Parts: sequence; structure tokens; C-alpha cells
Amino acid sequence: MKINLERLRKDVEDLSRIGRDPRGGVTRPSFSQADFEARAWLKNRICEAGLYHRQDGAGNIFGRLGADGPTVLVGSHIDTVINGGAFDGAAGVLAALECLRRIKEEGRTLSKPLELVSFTDEEGNLVGDFLGSRAFAGTLSREEINTGLTPFGRPLGTILEGTEFSLESILGAHKERPQLDSYLELHIEQGTTLEMEEISIGIVERIAGKIYRQCSFVGQASHAGTTPLELRRDAFLATADFALRGTQLVATKHYGSMITVGRITAHPGSFSVVPGKVDFTLDLRSSSGDTLRVLDTELREMAADIASTRGTEFFWRAIDRTEPVALSERIIGIMKDECGKLGYSWMALTSGAGHDAQIVAPLAETGMIFIPCRDGISHSPEEMIDWKDLETGANLLLQTLLRLAG
Amino acid sequence: MKINLERLRKDVEDLSRIGRDPRGGVTRPSFSQADFEARAWLKNRICEAGLYHRQDGAGNIFGRLGADGPTVLVGSHIDTVINGGAFDGAAGVLAALECLRRIKEEGRTLSKPLELVSFTDEEGNLVGDFLGSRAFAGTLSREEINTGLTPFGRPLGTILEGTEFSLESILGAHKERPQLDSYLELHIEQGTTLEMEEISIGIVERIAGKIYRQCSFVGQASHAGTTPLELRRDAFLATADFALRGTQLVATKHYGSMITVGRITAHPGSFSVVPGKVDFTLDLRSSSGDTLRVLDTELREMAADIASTRGTEFFWRAIDRTEPVALSERIIGIMKDECGKLGYSWMALTSGAGHDAQIVAPLAETGMIFIPCRDGISHSPEEMIDWKDLETGANLLLQTLLRLAG
Repeated sequence: MKINLERLRKDVEDLSRIGRDPRGGVTRPSFSQADFEARAWLKNRICEAGLYHRQDGAGNIFGRLGADGPTVLVGSHIDTVINGGAFDGAAGVLAALECLRRIKEEGRTLSKPLELVSFTDEEGNLVGDFLGSRAFAGTLSREEINTGLTPFGRPLGTILEGTEFSLESILGAHKERPQLDSYLELHIEQGTTLEMEEISIGIVERIAGKIYRQCSFVGQASHAGTTPLELRRDAFLATADFALRGTQLVATKHYGSMITVGRITAHPGSFSVVPGKVDFTLDLRSSSGDTLRVLDTELREMAADIASTRGTEFFWRAIDRTEPVALSERIIGIMKDECGKLGYSWMALTSGAGHDAQIVAPLAETGMIFIPCRDGISHSPEEMIDWKDLETGANLLLQTLLRLAG
Repeated sequence: MKINLERLRKDVEDLSRIGRDPRGGVTRPSFSQADFEARAWLKNRICEAGLYHRQDGAGNIFGRLGADGPTVLVGSHIDTVINGGAFDGAAGVLAALECLRRIKEEGRTLSKPLELVSFTDEEGNLVGDFLGSRAFAGTLSREEINTGLTPFGRPLGTILEGTEFSLESILGAHKERPQLDSYLELHIEQGTTLEMEEISIGIVERIAGKIYRQCSFVGQASHAGTTPLELRRDAFLATADFALRGTQLVATKHYGSMITVGRITAHPGSFSVVPGKVDFTLDLRSSSGDTLRVLDTELREMAADIASTRGTEFFWRAIDRTEPVALSERIIGIMKDECGKLGYSWMALTSGAGHDAQIVAPLAETGMIFIPCRDGISHSPEEMIDWKDLETGANLLLQTLLRLAG
């Protein structure tokens, strides 16, 4: 049994037209008008395929094949970042749809029910990453969704007004969860490893953990024309030193882990004033929880050293922290086995990006398939794939589903 | 003859109450409501002192003692930055007022007329530094004042509506300029040299030149979790490298010159995205025009080197450029001589900050007196002086005026 690439490609292209952004790419954050249009479109595809459509209180969309019992869940998400691409998330949901459609068409009788899922707001456009899968898993707190403004400037509760959803329904979504046998997800790699190795299949062994920190060096703002260099307490030079030395530390001592300073704000932020305070973000990732903790401690010590050398103070606080997740060895074994039967080359990978799979993994055996994306680019209008890779990945997904449910 | 410190201090304190900002310090940008209030207050002081008050088309305020002929001009400015202090500018205008008041009181007959001046918008709150003195000197172009928005979000022409000033009157101000003999200005140092040396008088020999540049490193935005460190084209690490190496270059090879990166914006500016572009400002200053040009060239080569090493491109453009200005050797000599007679300790200084004096210097022999300010702090609610230093500085200003006009 093989998937129908023509049909799958048409689905991906049709969905990518919903939320097309005149400034480029696809803008389809959850609970936007484009998202509701995409939900209606997906519901039609699910019903046309003869699957049972339902939706939980968090807006997670399901398409079921088979009756009750421990369920083999398969999916991803259809929301995008602002000016995102056509494949991040959508490829996984529509590959899953195509798999269930083929199994239904073939009339194959399976011992376990299969269910397609599209999780709400994987991209964290509202109140943080993985809103839908965390509501599904029951790990979302009332405080997280109740407080603060979304990046759209309104609280989540206000955004939900006039929809069929509410903060209460989101918090209750996990009660509607079926008993799970396992979870599978296909996703674009969002990196360049597969492309550079010219391999179509990445079998994900681990998803990296991360620590997000908001950091500040605080020195003394002073006049750029009259403060001698040796008397300055320049918070930007401290930040520059930290970013370079921190990157060097990871590259030499913790190779394979990641460090990124992505957002930087200097105060007061004027041509002629030495920055007295710089706020910046720190994104640390590693496939090893121990490495992540050691790196975090080493960076704290490095920052303290830089702060004292440069006449500044250093502050940081954790914004988010997730442990690395190991995926199911049994499912990894099945995937390797099926690649052999199908004649597909594959390689084992660690995912540096986060995925709904890491949220579902504590609930059931979980597996992930990566396919290459061009130049490793995602979250961008330039996001692109080779369609043959999607075909290869979806066929592996199909065979893995048949093994798990058969 | 000595100045009356009690009266001068009362003037400084009275003026500092106009534009008092509830968020701290004094906010009195030119052509604001607070500025018009301050102008009326200053006019009253000028008239009370028996000086002849006038105003030119740029809003520069004058108070004249004596008839026609080459004029000894003395002053500074009364505008402030947002949340500025009570002394930057105001100390110079009010010390000049006190000197002319004392000379008038004593009935001293001088061979040359004296004129107090308060220049409009020295701080560049509207369309760039030194609006008033540049209008006075006739070096302001129509394009500069006609285009773009002020930081207050409205074009200068709109801000001037309903006032007695217009773009035309500003551009014509230099036609009202008296024939100049010389110009003197007293100002707070805005640095820590005098305070650390425990010396009350800085005799300014040169005003540093500067180059302002807007710079960008452009690399490639990419996923913070999936892009290996060695494949990144991180525009922030390039910027960090440039700031640190550039500072090292100045500290070792061009000691005494200044380099400052004051404003930094990373794009897209997200936790989990490697910055693909960083825009930043570069402020270079030196008392030597040759050093400034050499440094500028060396930094351009350094940036090109960093750009190629880090897989980025580098762009910059000049925003502003002023040559260093040498002040009058004759006036410097008079000041040193008068310090000796008065028993004041003094030291020669280069001003790293810009002043109206550098704009007037090409028109007439120019001299500047610095007095210490606490911790070198200016442009801040914390700006403070020792009143004895103001007395000392104003007495030197008075004796220098008498020598120049006597």
C-alpha cells in the first residue's frame, strides 16, 4: 500500500492558500479568521475521507478511523507563525490524513483505532508554545492562559469571545482525550542535516530540551564623548563579551548543544550615550538534560565574571524550561525496519526544534519522522520541500501506522 | 570685580523649576510650552538687568550691553534633553547674565559691546544638534529643517505653527547677526576629569570632531534549535565582535579617542531565531581630524574582515560628521593669565561633547570654560555641581570678558 502523492500535494497546496499573506508566505495563527477557514476546510477533507470528525475544547481537530480502544494517534498542527511557510505542521497533518484515507480506501481491518490530530497553536502565537497539545495532555495551568496579553495585544479570553471556545473549555480539553496507544508525527526537519547528507528520512531519537532566559547587564549610562573608555560601565560591551564567550564555550565544550542571543535592547538606546542597561534573550538547547544544566551553570559563572570585570551587574530569570525527551525505542525500531523493507535511506537525528510530540511523549509511545526542507529554512515564506521527500516520508508513516495498529 | 553667587544660584534654581518633569529632572526642549515660559522668564531677567533684549528668527535670545561695533558674545543654551538637568546650558547662560549684570552695575565703560546669547535647541531635540547656533552661523540647509519628522512625531514646520517663528525665519536668522569680535561659553564638563583632579577650571583647547554612522551586519535568520553553530550567519555575533574589537583598537592604538555602540536592534528579534540582521549606531570622536579619518578607515576594514569570517555582509552610512575645532590661542592665554591672577588652579582639556562654541568658532575667536559636574553625570535628573565651582568659573568668565572688551 502506498500513499497518493498527487492528492497529498493538492491538499498541501490548497491549505497553503488559506491565510496567504500579501507581505509573504502564510499567516494563519490559531483562532484567526484564516485559522477558522482552515479548520472548516480540514473538517471537509476529514468527512470526505469517511473519517469521524470531532474537536475538543482546545480546538484540537480529530479524524477517527475505527471504534474504541487504545488509539494510534497521528498528526501535527495547521497553525503557522506570522509570514510562515506551507509545510511546517501542515505537511504532518495532511500526510496523516492521506495515510488514513488510503487505509480506509483499501478497507484494511486493523486491531486498533487510528486517529488523525491537528493540535491548536503549536507555534505559540497566543500564550506560549504547544497550547493545544498541552491542553490535550492536561499540563496547562490556568495562570498561563489567564494572565498577560497575547502578542496581538488582547488577552486570550478576549480573542476567544464569540467562538465556541473559552479558557474553561481549553483547560477541560484533556478530559476528552481517548486512551492512547501511541503517537506519530511527520515534520520538516527545519535544519540542513538531511539535505546535506542527501537522505530523505530522519528518524528522530530525541527532542532537545531547552532553557529560555531573559537576561540583563546593568552598568551606567554615560556621555559617549566625555567618558573615557576605561571608566565606562558599558552594558553592551558586557553583552557582546557574553555572547561571544558563551558561543565559544558551547562550540568547544558542549558541541551539538545550541546557544542563541536573539533579541537585544540597549537602554537608553541613543547614538551618543554609552548603554547603561542591555536586556537580551538567551536560548539554550541540548539533547542531554545534564549538559543543559551544566551549561546553564557555566554561563551563570561566566556572566558573573564578565559583570565584575566590566563594572556591571548581571541578572537573569528563566522564562521557559523543557527537559529533553527520548522517543520510543520500539517505534524507532519499527521505522528502521520499514525503511529497510521500503529501500529508503535514513539517519537517526535529534530534533533541536520543539514539537507537539514532546508533549504527547509522556502519555504514550511516540515516534517522529523528519523530511528535508530546502536550505533548512522554516518559519519563512521561503520554506520549501522536495515533493518526493514528502512521498517517502508519508509512505514510511503509513507503514509504521499499519505496524502499530495492525 | 566679582560675581554675586547668591543671585546667580537663585537664577539657576528659578529656571530649573520651569519644565520640571514629574518623571524626573527638567524637560524643556526648544519650542515646547516650558521653553516659551523659560524664554519669557529670561527676557524679564535681561530687561531687569538693564540689557537690551532681542530675539532673532531662530529664536536665539540676546541681551546687549553697549552700542554698535564688533561684539563680544557670551552664552550657551537654556533648552534641555528629555529628563535632563538644571546645569547643562543654563549654567552658561546665567553665568553670562550675571557677568553682564555686574559690569552694568559697576558702570564700567568698555571699548566693545557685550552681548549675552541663549541659542535655540542646542540639544538637537528637533532636527539635529545646534539648530540655533547653526542658524546664527548660516550653516543650516533648507533640506535639514524641511524634511523628516522631529522625535515628537511632527515636522518642524508644524511645531512652529502659531509661534512667531517659521522655517523661513530660522533660515534668515544669520542676516541679523552682529559683527563678532569673539565668543565665550561656560559649560559643565560632562565628564569626570576635573572632579577626579579636584580642579575647578577646565580651559578648553579643542572640541573633538565626530563621525556618526548607522551600521548593519546582514547574515541569515535561522532556527535557534536546528542550525548548528558552525553554519550560522549570526548578525549579532558579528556586531558583538565588531564592538569589542573596535573598542580594543581605540583603547590601544588611538587612546583618548572614543567609540560607542549606543543603539542596537536585532531582526527578527525573537527568542528562537538567530538574528539575520542587526542595525546599530557607531559614535566616533577624536580631537584630531586625522585620527578620526584613520580610525574610520581601520574600522571599515575590520568590519569587512569580520563580515567575511562570519558569513555576513556589512553596510554603513554617515549620519553626521563634524571636524575637530581648535579654540582661540589668544583667549586660552588670557584665561590662563587670569587664573593666575585670581589664584585659581586650572587644567587644559579637550571637550569630547559638542557645544555651540564649535559652531561659532569659525566666525570669531572662541573660548570655553568648563566647571566640574558631580560624577561626570549630565543629561540626567542627577546632574549636579558644587556651587563654589560655578562661582569660580563665572569669575574667570567675568575677568576674560573684561579683558576682551576692555
